[in-house]
Amino acid sequence: MLLSSATAMLAAARAEAEKLGVTVCVSIVDAAAWPMAFIRMEGTILGAIDVSNKKARTAAVFQMDSADFALIACPGGGAYSLENTNGGLTSFGGGIALKAKDGTLLGAIGVSGASTEDDIAIAQAAANALTA
Amino acid sequence: MLLSSATAMLAAARAEAEKLGVTVCVSIVDAAAWPMAFIRMEGTILGAIDVSNKKARTAAVFQMDSADFALIACPGGGAYSLENTNGGLTSFGGGIALKAKDGTLLGAIGVSGASTEDDIAIAQAAANALTA
Amino acid sequence: MLLSSATAMLAAARAEAEKLGVTVCVSIVDAAAWPMAFIRMEGTILGAIDVSNKKARTAAVFQMDSADFALIACPGGGAYSLENTNGGLTSFGGGIALKAKDGTLLGAIGVSGASTEDDIAIAQAAANALTA
Amino acid sequence: MLLSSATAMLAAARAEAEKLGVTVCVSIVDAAAWPMAFIRMEGTILGAIDVSNKKARTAAVFQMDSADFALIACPGGGAYSLENTNGGLTSFGGGIALKAKDGTLLGAIGVSGASTEDDIAIAQAAANALTA
Repeated sequence: MLLSSATAMLAAARAEAEKLGVTVCVSIVDAAAWPMAFIRMEGTILGAIDVSNKKARTAAVFQMDSADFALIACPGGGAYSLENTNGGLTSFGGGIALKAKDGTLLGAIGVSGASTEDDIAIAQAAANALTA
Repeated sequence: MLLSSATAMLAAARAEAEKLGVTVCVSIVDAAAWPMAFIRMEGTILGAIDVSNKKARTAAVFQMDSADFALIACPGGGAYSLENTNGGLTSFGGGIALKAKDGTLLGAIGVSGASTEDDIAIAQAAANALTA
Repeated sequence: MLLSSATAMLAAARAEAEKLGVTVCVSIVDAAAWPMAFIRMEGTILGAIDVSNKKARTAAVFQMDSADFALIACPGGGAYSLENTNGGLTSFGGGIALKAKDGTLLGAIGVSGASTEDDIAIAQAAANALTA
Repeated sequence: MLLSSATAMLAAARAEAEKLGVTVCVSIVDAAAWPMAFIRMEGTILGAIDVSNKKARTAAVFQMDSADFALIACPGGGAYSLENTNGGLTSFGGGIALKAKDGTLLGAIGVSGASTEDDIAIAQAAANALTA
C-alpha cells in the first residue's frame, strides 16, 4: 500500500467524522502491522490514540475486522484470552482489514474516539476510499 | 528433550497441517518453558506467532494442555485471572504438555493459525511423534 | 497546535526529504507529548518508526531539541541515564521542540530514517513551516 | 523468503556451529522482522535465546548487520541510544541482514551463544546458504 493511499484514507476518515460531527484518531498500518500514517483530530480524547493503533494492529495480524475478532476473543468466546496476545488487542469494532480483490491483505485501519458505531462507519468510509 | 525430538515434532506438525490444508505456527519449549524450536508456515497470519508461543508456555508452566487450562482460567472458572499471569497465558486449545510415561514433564508444544480444533489435532500429531 | 499545523509540517518535511533524496518517518506530538500526526515515507527502514516517535517525545518532555538533550544525557554527560527515563528517550539529533515566540511549548517534531544531519534539516524545515 | 530457505539456513548454521565445536541459538525473521524459524542447540546458555532474536530484529529493522549497527549505536557513537529503541536492540555482531542482489531486504538472521566472532561466522555461513 502506498503512503498516498494511506493519506487518502485519512482524508476520507476525517471527512466522514466531520459529517457525523465527531472527532477521532485514525491509524493505518501495512500488511505486517507496521504504522504507516496517523492523525488525531482536535478534541479527541487522549485514550483513543492507543485504541486506534491497537484496532489497526488487531485487524492486520488476524486479517479480520476487530468487530469479528470480538466475537471469538472475549469471555465465553471460542478463543477467550486471544485479546491479550500480541501486546494487547481490541475486541470491539473500528478496526478493518484492508484486502485486495484476491483476498491479499494490504494493511488495516483503526478508528477510535467516537461511539463504536461511528468509529466503524468512519473506518468503512476510509476503506472505501482505498478501493474507489 | 533433544533438539532432534523438537525438530521431529515440527516436521510431524507440518505434515499434519498440510494434510488438513491449513498453515500454522509451531512452538516447542522445554520443561522450563524456554523456547527450543519454532516455525511459521508460509501464509500463516502474523498474530499466530505470539499465540503459539503462549500456548506452549501455558502448557509448560502449568503442566497441562491449554484446553484444560481454559476450563479453570476464565471468567466464572475456578481460577479466573490465572490467564493473566506469567506474561499472559492462553485459555483455549492448541497447547499440549509433553510428558514421559512416568508423568515427568519433558516440555510443551503450541500450535496456532488454524481453527482451534485443527490446532489441537496438529499439536497432538506432533506430540505423538515424540513418543513414537 | 492545530491538526492543520501538524499536517502542514508533515508536508514540509516530505518536501524537504524529497529534495534531499531520502525517505523518513515524521512524528508530531503536542505539548503534552501525545501523538498528533505521523507518516512513514515509502522505503523508510522500519526501525525509524519508533525512533521518530521517541525523538519527538524527547523534545516535548524536556522542551529541548534532542541534539541538545544528547549533550547531557549520555555516558560522561551531566545527566547520564536521563535517556533511560520516560520509556526510553533519544540522545541524538532529529527531535525539535516547537515553541511560540514567548517560549511556550507548542509541541515537538521527530524525524528519523536518513543521516542525523538530514533528519535535523528535515525537522527544521518542518518547524519553519509552523511559524511561516 | 520461503520457510524452506529459513530451515536451510538453520541447517547450515548448525553445521557450522558443530564444525566450530560450539552451541548457539539461531533466529530467522522476515523483512518485516516477524519470526520465521528458530532453534536452540542443546547446551546453549538460556540467555542466548533473546539475544539471537534481538540480533535478527536489529539487522532487519535497520537493514544492516548488528556489527555495523554497533559502531553507531553505542556510547560515543553517532547515534547513542538507538540501541534502546524498538524494544531493545543489539550492539554487537551476530545479526546479519539478508539481501537480494538488488539490495532488497529478504529478512535477517541472528546467532548467539558462542563468542561474537563465532556467532558472526555461523550467521555468515547460514547467510551464504541462502544465496548458494
